[in-house]
Amino acid sequence: MHTQTLARQIVATEMDRLPLETLYESKRSFLNWLGVAIGGSQHPAVEKALAAVRMLARAPQATVLGRREKVDVWSASLLNGLSSHVFDFDDTLLETVLHPSAPVFPAILAFAEHGRLGGKAVLAAFVIGCEVAARVARMLYPSHYDRGWHITGTAGAIGAAAAVGKLLQLDEVRMGYAIGLAATQPTGLREMFGTMTKPFHPGMAAANGLFSALLAREGFTSSLRALEAKRGYGMVLSERPDFSVLHEGWGRNWHILQNSYKPFACGIVMHPAIDGMIRLRRHGLLPEEIQEVELKVHPLVLELTGKPEPQDGLEAKFSVYHGAAVAFLDGKAGEGQFRMERVRDPAVVSLRRKIKADVDAGLAADQARLVVRTTDGSVYEEFVEHAVGSKERPMTDEELREKFRDVTQEVLPEEAQARILRQVDTLEAQRDIRSLTESIAAGM
Amino acid sequence: MHTQTLARQIVATEMDRLPLETLYESKRSFLNWLGVAIGGSQHPAVEKALAAVRMLARAPQATVLGRREKVDVWSASLLNGLSSHVFDFDDTLLETVLHPSAPVFPAILAFAEHGRLGGKAVLAAFVIGCEVAARVARMLYPSHYDRGWHITGTAGAIGAAAAVGKLLQLDEVRMGYAIGLAATQPTGLREMFGTMTKPFHPGMAAANGLFSALLAREGFTSSLRALEAKRGYGMVLSERPDFSVLHEGWGRNWHILQNSYKPFACGIVMHPAIDGMIRLRRHGLLPEEIQEVELKVHPLVLELTGKPEPQDGLEAKFSVYHGAAVAFLDGKAGEGQFRMERVRDPAVVSLRRKIKADVDAGLAADQARLVVRTTDGSVYEEFVEHAVGSKERPMTDEELREKFRDVTQEVLPEEAQARILRQVDTLEAQRDIRSLTESIAAGM
Repeated sequence: MHTQTLARQIVATEMDRLPLETLYESKRSFLNWLGVAIGGSQHPAVEKALAAVRMLARAPQATVLGRREKVDVWSASLLNGLSSHVFDFDDTLLETVLHPSAPVFPAILAFAEHGRLGGKAVLAAFVIGCEVAARVARMLYPSHYDRGWHITGTAGAIGAAAAVGKLLQLDEVRMGYAIGLAATQPTGLREMFGTMTKPFHPGMAAANGLFSALLAREGFTSSLRALEAKRGYGMVLSERPDFSVLHEGWGRNWHILQNSYKPFACGIVMHPAIDGMIRLRRHGLLPEEIQEVELKVHPLVLELTGKPEPQDGLEAKFSVYHGAAVAFLDGKAGEGQFRMERVRDPAVVSLRRKIKADVDAGLAADQARLVVRTTDGSVYEEFVEHAVGSKERPMTDEELREKFRDVTQEVLPEEAQARILRQVDTLEAQRDIRSLTESIAAGM
Repeated sequence: MHTQTLARQIVATEMDRLPLETLYESKRSFLNWLGVAIGGSQHPAVEKALAAVRMLARAPQATVLGRREKVDVWSASLLNGLSSHVFDFDDTLLETVLHPSAPVFPAILAFAEHGRLGGKAVLAAFVIGCEVAARVARMLYPSHYDRGWHITGTAGAIGAAAAVGKLLQLDEVRMGYAIGLAATQPTGLREMFGTMTKPFHPGMAAANGLFSALLAREGFTSSLRALEAKRGYGMVLSERPDFSVLHEGWGRNWHILQNSYKPFACGIVMHPAIDGMIRLRRHGLLPEEIQEVELKVHPLVLELTGKPEPQDGLEAKFSVYHGAAVAFLDGKAGEGQFRMERVRDPAVVSLRRKIKADVDAGLAADQARLVVRTTDGSVYEEFVEHAVGSKERPMTDEELREKFRDVTQEVLPEEAQARILRQVDTLEAQRDIRSLTESIAAGM
């Protein structure tokens, strides 16, 4: 009964009556997702997956973001899901650690591009797909994740199926089939973290979700008790599934409004210190004028990111000293700030060594206190009450645009970035999403 | 270490040095699989999946068995896996209830057809794919199946990945990646039994296994501890995985030699009674001469298949009375004997009503005792010590050929059947498997 009720809720939700704030947040999610997908598109994992997909020699139906070629909608879903998760720089629903965009948007965009749908449909479908993925994730959480499932791959596929199913205008029964088909294909073991297979999970979730909806359109049957049955999805994949969260407050509490975006390309515990160092730039200090920086941080910071002398990009992501130093020097901490060049740069190394960090157990996880002493004896202080990207201090639209520019800078020239940003800004008014995808492809 | 050891075992196994009896059994498995795949190819589930796949408009690389069209290798794996399982008439490794051919052969055949490989490579790859799937299934069994996983979909994908990986001549590390990629995509909840999604499981297992091997060829990385890690396949999908069965006796005890084929298109408990009724035909009795048939059967027979007056094809598969009656009248019990026409046929109904069945707790599951009394007072008796299809009385090659003819009769004309049977008979000598696939397509 839960599967059927969920299907009914999805079908009954009118795409053109969604609250405006959900569409607004959907657009912010889209911009964030589009940037990390384009930015990740040159990663070796994407190269390799593209080579495997090429072997299938499929019809050029949909754009591989950040690349010149088109592939069929299934392959585009897989590849764009993969590239948007390779940097671990996508969005997060903190309650379940679900990353909703990477498995859901690729399926929507590929389907919409092939079918020449408009921007508003893309945004509305994501509101619904995100809602379904978030609720399925809550239904399974936490035992599901604890056991070893990568919740973005497992719950994400059902969100993708619901979103595409909505664009296909499936009826209740077929929406139920789509949910069941996606449920029977859970992708993602946490053991894969640290390998290319991690970002493959949301990619396959997108492809499986899309294909589930396409099968359901044909009337391909699955169980209408897929989620709640004794040998169904909830009981098999979780110890104590809570089916009530699939329904409570549906249509009132929109999960997309909880979506959060990472301003910095590293673990979230380092973010307050990085935010503080960027704020300190307003005093116009030169690095060589700095004698010492004292950081006071939450205990987890040194536990997880206490590496004083990182040797490569991955280690730098686990060094609050490195993050703080590049943030001051560059005014940001994107993927580029964690590359080998920056890790070894003498200016970075020099500043990194002037930074001391101590635990202050009185600080919250999104707080930091910074004291800078200069060579001429001046002292500057900064207290970060809520780091940028936290719930209390979400990234502004302009910060999201800046993140887009930064993360795509090695793939897109500036004029293409500006054009795409303008198009995303009026996405709901675009009558054919191809005006955007063609613009992206033309910018390569 | 178990994943890497398994990869090493697979890579070290020389395809051209496999024992002859394994290749012989592989050919029997192939014939059985090919028949049920062609026979199932007109099922609505295949129609619908084909319609969904067509939307991807991929290159015509491989044959959809029983149909005129070609599709890409991924889609062919999916469709042929689906069609070979729609009748539940494929092969079984009884120890784990794994059906090895449906997830493994489709991937091998599609890849071999596209790459113009020979028949011997197809047979050898299945020996290895079956071996890997069987061992992974044993590693997970029984808690995996009890919890609600469809083991044919989950373990089958790893077998398919290994088989295609072998044809791709992957090295140890890439074979490990292929295993990991297939492991992270387990398909199949038992809740789907009774819907089209059940046969979809081996289809997706074949497609996922194939694609995993293609990704691994490109060097797409996954965990080399995918099976044994704390948050890996074994621990997440089973309560007490037994990793030792992955290795014990590798290269000596070939699981394919345990493969069994169903002679009759219904639950295995009915098989002894059906076998006995077919044997009784040798006396040349006419149905109207029969006054009464007394069946003595194992207790499970009446518990599972005790329906005296079935109303449709599905119920007929759960009626030992129907099975026994059609077996006597038709000399077989294939898919055709469980169609509505036969269920309602007055001759079948009449004979069905003359059959009495009683439990004899002294009989084994593969035994039955039959007594027929005729209108002129004669008595004929039959004792089935081991039903055909059981381990002690496997189907003969000629019985497998007859099953092929029977199961494909509505799809293939007789001369095509005869030609294909001849080709399969010398499959190891075929230098290009396309001579067979083209012959099948030409027979439509």
